[in-house]
Amino acid sequence: MRNKMKSFITNTLSDFFFEYETPRQVLVRNRRVAVVCRLIQLGVLAYIIGWVFIYEKGYQSSDTAVGSVLTKMKGVGYTNVTGEERIWDVADYVFPVQGDSSFVVMTNYIMTKGQKIEKCSELLLHVGKAISLVSFLRVFVPLHPTPPQGHMTGKCLVNTTKMCEVLAWCPVEDDGSIPDPALLMSAENFTLFIKNTINFPAYGVTRCNLVEGIDNQYIKSCLYDPKTAPLCPIFRLGDLVQMSGFNFAAIAKVGGAIGIIIDWTCNLDHDQSDCKPIYSFHGLYGNPDEADTARASVGYNFRYAKHYMEDKQEKRTLLKVFGIRFDIIVRSVARKFDIIPTLTAIGSGVGIFGVATVVCDLILLYLLPKREFYNNMKFKVTETMEKVSLHQTVA
Amino acid sequence: MRNKMKSFITNTLSDFFFEYETPRQVLVRNRRVAVVCRLIQLGVLAYIIGWVFIYEKGYQSSDTAVGSVLTKMKGVGYTNVTGEERIWDVADYVFPVQGDSSFVVMTNYIMTKGQKIEKCSELLLHVGKAISLVSFLRVFVPLHPTPPQGHMTGKCLVNTTKMCEVLAWCPVEDDGSIPDPALLMSAENFTLFIKNTINFPAYGVTRCNLVEGIDNQYIKSCLYDPKTAPLCPIFRLGDLVQMSGFNFAAIAKVGGAIGIIIDWTCNLDHDQSDCKPIYSFHGLYGNPDEADTARASVGYNFRYAKHYMEDKQEKRTLLKVFGIRFDIIVRSVARKFDIIPTLTAIGSGVGIFGVATVVCDLILLYLLPKREFYNNMKFKVTETMEKVSLHQTVA
Amino acid sequence: MRNKMKSFITNTLSDFFFEYETPRQVLVRNRRVAVVCRLIQLGVLAYIIGWVFIYEKGYQSSDTAVGSVLTKMKGVGYTNVTGEERIWDVADYVFPVQGDSSFVVMTNYIMTKGQKIEKCSELLLHVGKAISLVSFLRVFVPLHPTPPQGHMTGKCLVNTTKMCEVLAWCPVEDDGSIPDPALLMSAENFTLFIKNTINFPAYGVTRCNLVEGIDNQYIKSCLYDPKTAPLCPIFRLGDLVQMSGFNFAAIAKVGGAIGIIIDWTCNLDHDQSDCKPIYSFHGLYGNPDEADTARASVGYNFRYAKHYMEDKQEKRTLLKVFGIRFDIIVRSVARKFDIIPTLTAIGSGVGIFGVATVVCDLILLYLLPKREFYNNMKFKVTETMEKVSLHQTVA
Repeated sequence: MRNKMKSFITNTLSDFFFEYETPRQVLVRNRRVAVVCRLIQLGVLAYIIGWVFIYEKGYQSSDTAVGSVLTKMKGVGYTNVTGEERIWDVADYVFPVQGDSSFVVMTNYIMTKGQKIEKCSELLLHVGKAISLVSFLRVFVPLHPTPPQGHMTGKCLVNTTKMCEVLAWCPVEDDGSIPDPALLMSAENFTLFIKNTINFPAYGVTRCNLVEGIDNQYIKSCLYDPKTAPLCPIFRLGDLVQMSGFNFAAIAKVGGAIGIIIDWTCNLDHDQSDCKPIYSFHGLYGNPDEADTARASVGYNFRYAKHYMEDKQEKRTLLKVFGIRFDIIVRSVARKFDIIPTLTAIGSGVGIFGVATVVCDLILLYLLPKREFYNNMKFKVTETMEKVSLHQTVA
Repeated sequence: MRNKMKSFITNTLSDFFFEYETPRQVLVRNRRVAVVCRLIQLGVLAYIIGWVFIYEKGYQSSDTAVGSVLTKMKGVGYTNVTGEERIWDVADYVFPVQGDSSFVVMTNYIMTKGQKIEKCSELLLHVGKAISLVSFLRVFVPLHPTPPQGHMTGKCLVNTTKMCEVLAWCPVEDDGSIPDPALLMSAENFTLFIKNTINFPAYGVTRCNLVEGIDNQYIKSCLYDPKTAPLCPIFRLGDLVQMSGFNFAAIAKVGGAIGIIIDWTCNLDHDQSDCKPIYSFHGLYGNPDEADTARASVGYNFRYAKHYMEDKQEKRTLLKVFGIRFDIIVRSVARKFDIIPTLTAIGSGVGIFGVATVVCDLILLYLLPKREFYNNMKFKVTETMEKVSLHQTVA
Repeated sequence: MRNKMKSFITNTLSDFFFEYETPRQVLVRNRRVAVVCRLIQLGVLAYIIGWVFIYEKGYQSSDTAVGSVLTKMKGVGYTNVTGEERIWDVADYVFPVQGDSSFVVMTNYIMTKGQKIEKCSELLLHVGKAISLVSFLRVFVPLHPTPPQGHMTGKCLVNTTKMCEVLAWCPVEDDGSIPDPALLMSAENFTLFIKNTINFPAYGVTRCNLVEGIDNQYIKSCLYDPKTAPLCPIFRLGDLVQMSGFNFAAIAKVGGAIGIIIDWTCNLDHDQSDCKPIYSFHGLYGNPDEADTARASVGYNFRYAKHYMEDKQEKRTLLKVFGIRFDIIVRSVARKFDIIPTLTAIGSGVGIFGVATVVCDLILLYLLPKREFYNNMKFKVTETMEKVSLHQTVA
């Protein structure tokens, strides 16, 4: 009994290993159909090899990086507003100071000195009477179209200027007219140094934008230029603005935002040192071209206060800062040979290959005049059970 | 010789182009097996067309965006703490000031004025005697459970209050009781303006949350509402808090964090202008529902100091700021028709299609009573080499 | 007519449902070819089941998370510079104060007190005469290798020290020698608390790094340790620096950057509570190992100013801050069973399976001595149209 079992298993195994199935096929000698079929098959082959493998590199898997960006500005600005000379260095014109990947360089400002909290009259807006009427209405109308400059005390000096009294940081800021040209036009010559490290966790590869050949000596003297120095990580602000399609004078006046894109597209099947960053620049907001009057919110500004104590009283210097905001955006994709996408591409390619035969069969079996003949060649029909037994009886 | 070669190649080529192979098949006329097979095939077809193509849009490739976010708060707060009126404007209550995608709006604070560096006694904590004992022990025990408030001088005033002397910013902050209700409850009416630009590099598409129809005029008067104004980029703080499932009074008191998610799910096979942001809001930390006493770290606060000089001495005003932290998170995915996923889906679909036949063959060849008969129909056996030669000899 | 149509459709439908095609196959009984074929097929099967499904979990789809990070430092620093004792608390040594995912902890500084804007002489650099010559040349040479410290007035004190006069924040900072050892070496004992919430939108799963079992009680006493407390979210700065491969004394002196990576790799087919963060640490910049003299830009520093008013004049205290920058980087991937990748893997697997037969057929039909015989077994040739008609006529 046991022997029988054993010999059965041995037989099955030897059958399994010593024979294999291969489909029986009809070689159809029909020029028109064959040409159609071959052309489809060649197309599929060209698609798989040319497009999927060579062009789209379908034999590779891909991964994006995690990274870290560090920036440092250099340069000193000088302003001379009505005889008052001022110096602006990095600690004064960069927000935030610590060198983040997103920061603002001040290019223009409206300074309101010596503000303290007290009751004063609202600022008479520049449109004149029309607005002073609005101010007048405010006391009665709860919905203010303009944000108020302080906390309404309820008193309104109707008989004199028709303005209301507010508890506010007085004197209130007068931002009716923006200095033109921008006060810190010298920002055009400031330089920005970018340090960017990325890591592709899936491949264990770490790269820094100070690639091979970018040493201390080179960095001391270089300046980014898309053609002559595309790997120099030091950028002149004026160049950045120009490469983003802005006009420096215009953006310096009202502010704007620029995206600095560091593009890492790495083919890790090649040498790591070929994995180099490509810098590109584009305007994010405040682009004067797209700033048709219908679209909203031109420029970029924010308010910033320096507090101090004078005569035992808290005061502040309020700065309405107009500036260029830089967002450093790291885009990264690394690709490397991987067996799974390769075999998936081949496997699904084989599947599509089969579609060619299906299409030609449709032509052969349904469209050709001799379809009956081909049908008989291709198909062999098992009679239904009943008929078969009948046949066998007859035989 | 050369002619022969030539004619050989011509023949092979003409053979290749003028004939094609198509598998010979058995048409099995067996109702039960056929129905099983057809149902499987229909299922596969329904899955490929219905699920992969229509529901999951498997004919599209996808890409995520890189983007940039800019924010601007508006509103003025007013506090009246023991008769001292104060005004809080944007420069005072937003951290950081420059309008980042992650920022904090102060809603409550503990202010400690006029701190200077000197030696003073540690603060008697509110638990009273139990803690003053701890302070007493600190001198001898190196591991402090509570972080100390300054640098221990080594002197401990054992005979009087049992507290130790520290070199610290004195007077030390007393954060034992948090103002309740929050001092800046008026923050509820502040508004937040969000500007978000995204770029799908793979498709060269740039979109801004100020989409078509959201012009300067509209922005001036609109306020976000999930139903009536889902595209207005101006949000009332009270609404944001409520939509995140918080109670404003509670979160304003101890602080918390809210995620504002801007969801861009774009089908770029349609018109670009259909690619619109969807805003959603959810609590990140400090959610009072999940703040069972066992879970850690309720609320959100940080310390912030304003330094000044008084009588030639450096002093500071320390603020323990309780606030709502907003993290603006951009989620994006764009999809567009692409030939590779389409053909991969079709190709692997053809593969799965083949599985139907394999399943039915298993039934046909192993389970049916007439399996011998079907076996003979389907398979034609080549005898092993030896036998074959034998047969041939016999013949 | 209508009946005919109806019966035609019924017949076609019943044909379609009650019969199915299965390919006719040759069972090739040839040991060598069969073994090759079977081994290829077994290899494909092992690859699909073992590699794609079990190892790479090809039956799962994957998604990355969006998240939010919140940090809080604790600890008090103490410095004693030439008899002047100072206390540094969180509001003084963390930039920015509000607990972002990227922040700097000051460890060393060069403080320049009492700067005001006036005209003064440039600082004599430490290289002495060589540099004073450079200063002299500056007036004539427009390209400055070193950034100037202020706005040149044009006057140069040639006869005395050969330095030029600048309008600047005077006295100008003397950053020639960095304090060694670092002034805030006590930063080693500061602690960092990290709170991180992530959300996998595709699966609707939200996780926080305060996972199950990490309660208030535990957090109060725990300290991260890779072996004994890998889930404690409180980190000692000295440990962080050491685990990143730095030497604390060295990095504290000149500054550096450390990446704290929170890795969420979650298999959501298991219980959510198994989805736990793994912390890892690595140096981003300023790694002394890679800082060979040829590579650029060692250390990390920035300038920061505290403004104040003294005798009606604006003054500032300038700090050149050397510090450790921490970037908290969240890496996340969640995987969950999904029908589409499963069926795509199976489908393309079936395709690759077919390749085995193709390879063996090539051997069988082109390489074996008996290839003619097998050719006849496998292929049945339809004569070209002309010949066929001829045959038929003959018959």
